[in-house]
Amino acid sequence: MLTRIDHIGIACFDLDVTVEFYRRTYGFTDEHFEVNEEQGVRECMLKINETGDGAASYLQLIEPIREDSAVAKWLAKNGEGVHHIAFGTDRDVAEESAFIEDEGIRVLYETPRNGSMGSRINFLHPKDCHGVLTELVQKPAPSTT
Amino acid sequence: MLTRIDHIGIACFDLDVTVEFYRRTYGFTDEHFEVNEEQGVRECMLKINETGDGAASYLQLIEPIREDSAVAKWLAKNGEGVHHIAFGTDRDVAEESAFIEDEGIRVLYETPRNGSMGSRINFLHPKDCHGVLTELVQKPAPSTT
Repeated sequence: MLTRIDHIGIACFDLDVTVEFYRRTYGFTDEHFEVNEEQGVRECMLKINETGDGAASYLQLIEPIREDSAVAKWLAKNGEGVHHIAFGTDRDVAEESAFIEDEGIRVLYETPRNGSMGSRINFLHPKDCHGVLTELVQKPAPSTT
Repeated sequence: MLTRIDHIGIACFDLDVTVEFYRRTYGFTDEHFEVNEEQGVRECMLKINETGDGAASYLQLIEPIREDSAVAKWLAKNGEGVHHIAFGTDRDVAEESAFIEDEGIRVLYETPRNGSMGSRINFLHPKDCHGVLTELVQKPAPSTT
């Protein structure tokens, strides 16, 4: 079951400049930076609010680090803006993806990949989702140590 | 202060078909339908999660009802997809807009207008917000009757 808006993914040309825009204009906090080599992006998570399922909603700002990354190609075509939206699931993301695939929606990866902050993710094809590139996010299990 | 992702605004050609997509695929609930004559749209709010400020985050699906509406023109250019994002504010939206305008961001309306479910809203110019049309939302005061 999808229990929250996990994040809104926003593509930008210059991550540091865009993070500073969100900090200065709205007072949002840049909680986490990371590089995702597989996706070819550098990203920042800005936490906006807690959510009723015990997690939170973020803005995810993403800057391409390679010209052949999907986000670089998207930016060249569209310019800066909202790139995708992401819902958090309370079950295994592979199970959630399979359930949605059964509804006739194309799932982009055969198996889940690594997302922000230790999450496991998959994407749904925007053409099957009324033009919206849609991500599914499973948070990492709480550490037992 | 902005305290939540209030909603993600998604433009679509056929509201009923798109609501049914979100209901069937993800199990989301269509909480509220309304027509906003001023904006020239028919819309549906799908509640996704509660938020830490005592409100909630929604998807807002919007279908133009007039060819000369801003959303109709946007759809003709871009096709279906994410049209805007909206943050909820805990103060008067006119005050919040003035504060942000002082940061050099253009505010689209001179005075706030009516948004979904009795809210008061304004928009920030996407060219001043790294390509993201951004809405500010003030929820209606709780009824005292």
